Amino acid sequence: MEGAQSFLATEYYYLGIFMVIMSIAIFSLLSIVTPEDGRTRNDEVRNGIFSTISFVLGGATSILSGYLGMQIATYANARTAVEARKGIAPAFMCAFRSGAVMGFLLSGFGLLNLFLAITVFLKFYGDDWKGLFEAITGYGLGGSSIALFGRVAGGIYTKAADVGADLVGKVEKDIPEDDPRNPAVIADNVGDNVGDIAGMGADLFGSFAESTCAALVISAVSSLGKEHDYSGMLFPLLISATGILVCLATTFIATDLKPARVIAEIEHTLKMQLIISTVLMTPVAAGVALWALPASFTLSVPSSTPDKPFDEKVVKNWYMFVCVATGLWGGLLVGLQTEYFTSNRYKPVQDVADACRTGAATDIIFGLALGYKSCIIPTIVIGIAIYVGTSLAGMFGIACCALGMLSTLATGLAIDAYGPISDNAGGIAEMAGMGEDIRERTDALDAAGNTTAAIGKGFAIGSAALVSLALFGAYVTRSKIDMIHSSILDPRVFSGLLLGAMLPYWFSAMTMKSVGKAALAMVHEVRRQFNTIAGLMEGTTRPDYKRCVAISTQAAISEMVAPGALVMFTPVVVGTLFGTQCLAGVLAGSLVSGVQLAVSMSNTGGAWDNAKKYIEAGATEHARELGGKGSDCHKAAVIGDTVGDPLKDTSGPSLNILIKLMAVESLVFAPFFYNCAHGQGLIFQFFGLA
Amino acid sequence: MEGAQSFLATEYYYLGIFMVIMSIAIFSLLSIVTPEDGRTRNDEVRNGIFSTISFVLGGATSILSGYLGMQIATYANARTAVEARKGIAPAFMCAFRSGAVMGFLLSGFGLLNLFLAITVFLKFYGDDWKGLFEAITGYGLGGSSIALFGRVAGGIYTKAADVGADLVGKVEKDIPEDDPRNPAVIADNVGDNVGDIAGMGADLFGSFAESTCAALVISAVSSLGKEHDYSGMLFPLLISATGILVCLATTFIATDLKPARVIAEIEHTLKMQLIISTVLMTPVAAGVALWALPASFTLSVPSSTPDKPFDEKVVKNWYMFVCVATGLWGGLLVGLQTEYFTSNRYKPVQDVADACRTGAATDIIFGLALGYKSCIIPTIVIGIAIYVGTSLAGMFGIACCALGMLSTLATGLAIDAYGPISDNAGGIAEMAGMGEDIRERTDALDAAGNTTAAIGKGFAIGSAALVSLALFGAYVTRSKIDMIHSSILDPRVFSGLLLGAMLPYWFSAMTMKSVGKAALAMVHEVRRQFNTIAGLMEGTTRPDYKRCVAISTQAAISEMVAPGALVMFTPVVVGTLFGTQCLAGVLAGSLVSGVQLAVSMSNTGGAWDNAKKYIEAGATEHARELGGKGSDCHKAAVIGDTVGDPLKDTSGPSLNILIKLMAVESLVFAPFFYNCAHGQGLIFQFFGLA
Ligand SMILES: [K+]
Ligand SMILES: [K+]
Ligand SMILES: [Mg+2]
Ligand SMILES: [Mg+2]
Ligand SMILES: [Mg+2]
Ligand SMILES: [Mg+2]
Ligand SMILES: [Mg+2]
Ligand SMILES: [Mg+2]
Ligand SMILES: [Mg+2]
Ligand SMILES: [Mg+2]
Ligand SMILES: [Mg+2]
Ligand SMILES: [Mg+2]
Repeated sequence: MEGAQSFLATEYYYLGIFMVIMSIAIFSLLSIVTPEDGRTRNDEVRNGIFSTISFVLGGATSILSGYLGMQIATYANARTAVEARKGIAPAFMCAFRSGAVMGFLLSGFGLLNLFLAITVFLKFYGDDWKGLFEAITGYGLGGSSIALFGRVAGGIYTKAADVGADLVGKVEKDIPEDDPRNPAVIADNVGDNVGDIAGMGADLFGSFAESTCAALVISAVSSLGKEHDYSGMLFPLLISATGILVCLATTFIATDLKPARVIAEIEHTLKMQLIISTVLMTPVAAGVALWALPASFTLSVPSSTPDKPFDEKVVKNWYMFVCVATGLWGGLLVGLQTEYFTSNRYKPVQDVADACRTGAATDIIFGLALGYKSCIIPTIVIGIAIYVGTSLAGMFGIACCALGMLSTLATGLAIDAYGPISDNAGGIAEMAGMGEDIRERTDALDAAGNTTAAIGKGFAIGSAALVSLALFGAYVTRSKIDMIHSSILDPRVFSGLLLGAMLPYWFSAMTMKSVGKAALAMVHEVRRQFNTIAGLMEGTTRPDYKRCVAISTQAAISEMVAPGALVMFTPVVVGTLFGTQCLAGVLAGSLVSGVQLAVSMSNTGGAWDNAKKYIEAGATEHARELGGKGSDCHKAAVIGDTVGDPLKDTSGPSLNILIKLMAVESLVFAPFFYNCAHGQGLIFQFFGLA
Repeated sequence: MEGAQSFLATEYYYLGIFMVIMSIAIFSLLSIVTPEDGRTRNDEVRNGIFSTISFVLGGATSILSGYLGMQIATYANARTAVEARKGIAPAFMCAFRSGAVMGFLLSGFGLLNLFLAITVFLKFYGDDWKGLFEAITGYGLGGSSIALFGRVAGGIYTKAADVGADLVGKVEKDIPEDDPRNPAVIADNVGDNVGDIAGMGADLFGSFAESTCAALVISAVSSLGKEHDYSGMLFPLLISATGILVCLATTFIATDLKPARVIAEIEHTLKMQLIISTVLMTPVAAGVALWALPASFTLSVPSSTPDKPFDEKVVKNWYMFVCVATGLWGGLLVGLQTEYFTSNRYKPVQDVADACRTGAATDIIFGLALGYKSCIIPTIVIGIAIYVGTSLAGMFGIACCALGMLSTLATGLAIDAYGPISDNAGGIAEMAGMGEDIRERTDALDAAGNTTAAIGKGFAIGSAALVSLALFGAYVTRSKIDMIHSSILDPRVFSGLLLGAMLPYWFSAMTMKSVGKAALAMVHEVRRQFNTIAGLMEGTTRPDYKRCVAISTQAAISEMVAPGALVMFTPVVVGTLFGTQCLAGVLAGSLVSGVQLAVSMSNTGGAWDNAKKYIEAGATEHARELGGKGSDCHKAAVIGDTVGDPLKDTSGPSLNILIKLMAVESLVFAPFFYNCAHGQGLIFQFFGLA
């Protein structure tokens, strides 16, 4: 798999350039801010320097995490294929353990670096904890901006190859998935690693980093920060740290106590990981909240009485346990409903499969309807979490909900990484000509992996929504917007809301079109090779895999620029030109609209994929009625699956990062935006409307 | 076409029952409100009675409009087919004139009834203009709730038939559109009338009624209302009335001065109607604003200073002209960009057609991307209109923007109705076996009609967004929510925002699934007839059209209940249980998210339809390369077209009504919601959180 390495090398080269430019921007924009409220020029410059340092650190951690994840995955793919010769149980164990290694590595690494940064920064900031934790938010920005490019580039890479390979291989030439005669097969398998492993790892690492930063920056202005309560301040990190231990304990259940021995047990075993880690984490979170936090402390929350901007809210330590538990269980609920809508063991996907009887059009209509419907429960869960979190502890409560949801991150990552590992093990088995029975085993591993991958996406979106809201809360405070100036009756806020709601659509238009264009190029190349290379179809000549890899690489790198620029520039342009209120509207609008679009895209795509697998596997009476591989139903299902690929693996998951990244970027640059015409925006100032 | 009549009879029977129940609900809920602020029991009962009367009047006007529109359309279809024997010019003239008759009838009728209601109500209300115009809002509720059911039921009817007819006829049996051998052909053509004519007419009538009501209820508490300035108060009606005259003058250009004589001129002639009516309306609007309104007057707008809830804002009469003109020109811009994205004379649709080379999957990926992208400009236009309107004259400004956009309603309706009229003329020509050349003429008329129908949908969505926002503003005032309590930092508002953003998805899931299910049933029936009726394929036996009509009718009636209930119950449930603030969030959330979803659905569907027509017509070198009718490209395009049918004709257009209807319903019931625990919501009161 040096294809993956060389792609990452190219990608990281460009990301390196991006980080240098961005570092200069962060440093200079934050340092030139006119000091106010008793701050000095030194304070501003220090904020510029340390924000930049934490940005670089966050970005570097993300890059390194992606790289290490890839290394593990590449090794694990081959190993799992080899183990599959011995049977289901050893193959499952190998894929699961590899996923777990990755989960623990990424979450431990992210936590450690953040802790080190705080410890070192303390030396320079001394008593100014508020300043310190404001600068630390750069860590989240760094992690998330790398994640954005990773997700977008990886998503385009993997889906251009996947769609291209399937359209010619499966639809036109009737050769199986991962057949070595298909010129795009290497690109497809490299794509699974760079997209689903490196991209997803970076995404969830970003969520973790941002929710911790959001919690820290909010609690820095609480009595915890003011009174220098070190263990209280580190509460967010303690939740994450104990979460890792809980997840570690949970894995023993899958590896030693009750490992999956037959195919039917796989999905159940993985799902139990999620449930058990949630159950175990609950008392642990209670213990941490009671131990680390003082019995009660005070938080500044936006005031709803007109005469002062902030109320002091008294918060008991067990409130914070309630917030963490709400997030924790809310995440599980979202995960389980995602499973219901995307696993082919339940009615929704079976209905979609059934709609294939009348062709691809009804398959697609039913799949879209399924995705739209799957938004209901997550939205209600997130809505309740928002209400509970805010009522108990303002935006700090929301941040703790997000931390709770992410406290089982290591398990989530493990079962999520399991998916592409077994997918690619199948690819290797097929390409190495390992035989039908081995391929069947890896296929079974992979079908469960499709569902757990969808669960992982559900988590990613749910936590992204809460994280963004917490960051949004911190941004609003930092840019001095009060309740009145964040009213939806204010035209700037409402116009912002509307524009923000449009951004996920604009962004998705770009990424979908990129995948479509790249897939077209791939299709033409694969067709060309089949038409011009003699003996290819007979298997006597090898295809030119390298050209397909080059097409994917080139498309991914060049097409990541425009959507990346949209996300990176929007907060800066809106904040500078139209002011902080409009930006607040944009953030809220993109959040509420992006969540729906992301959930519906992921689940629609997952459902189509598994509807196709349902028809292929023919495990039930109903499934066999649909005709199995090669039937008209199956052809229709393949079209649905192909449409779903960019939805679920490119556009959908990138939207999480869009909403998080815009929020954290706004938070980091808030002092600069406020500095432009006191947050009124240069355009409005120019027209005298400020 | 007694099929259409009998369907409408069934539909109106159920709508009659709905209206009786709803009338009882309106009367009783509003009458039991505890009088406050110096109001008496009598005032509340009077509000209950007159709100109910205007509700019934609005509903009845909508039903009658739909019925008359249908009558005209049914007559016009046949007449256009006959005229097509003489040539393009007479056929165009006939279709266009019929559309114009319908446009003038609907807009004139809606305006007249509203004016009569105001005049009669004045006798009973005397000096209490505020009370009068609050009661008049029932007119908007009546118009819009009938429109909802009309759109949903009509949309399900027409698309179940259309999809069913196409999937078996075009895809499986390779017989042309509207072939009399297809058992679903009658249902398809009836559907065009009930869905595209009756549904769309009711929708735009609803927008008109609601925007006028919103403007009236807001200006009733301005100095215009307080000082009983009659001509000032009737400014909204005067704009609509002069708009009708301007549109009348504009039609002479298409009928007498520069009628379309050849195919290439049709789309241009229709588009010019829109442009010219906009140009002519501009000075007229200026004249009306300067004549009807006093040089300056004062409005109550929500205050941004903490110590009082309202500011008195001084508004000059020419401000109102600016608002009307912003809406007027904004609507034109939205219309023209819709044309760009859905007409096959431009690159976007041609790209989608080109993507058919690699099959249905890429066709669909490109089409979805096109729809997402087409959200950008309308959102920016609406965002600017919101900013301009609110800055100049608060929510009254927004209402006037909406009125401006709708002032050319008669022209919009005319060119919109033109589409289904020529579509069905083609159907009649085909079924009557009128010959190839006549069918070609009606096809050319219809292709232009597809684009103008998309333009009409663009208008409908743009105006719906502005109307909803104006209604939302009136609702907020009536339920006594100030700036602080509508802050997005308030957890009730934000949770509401998120839930609201989810509603369009839930609603679309229902309507898409309904179309899918009904289409499946239709496909099975059509296949059954082809398989069991001997001589059907040879044309010697007639199919059983009635059973297909019955399937569509039954599906439409039974499937309209659930989405209708979702829209009708949500405001009542949220307002009563979770309070007025949460409802404000829900309204804003559904507005910002629904606009995007509606625009993208309409344009995606329109683009797929015209991509298919582009391949069929083969008018350019590029189009001919794609292979024409029956080629693989064409087959892929038909799948895209079929997926697009429920998007553009059922779910998308219904979303306009969803956002408007929830807003107007909230406005009407606002006193009742406020009456429940002072707007805090019964649930929160129960838990002591009120
Ligand atoms: K995959
Ligand atoms: K149509
Ligand atoms: Mg594939
Ligand atoms: Mg792949
Ligand atoms: Mg694979
Ligand atoms: Mg897979
Ligand atoms: Mg797939
Ligand atoms: Mg059709
Ligand atoms: Mg039709
Ligand atoms: Mg037709
Ligand atoms: Mg048509
Ligand atoms: Mg169509």
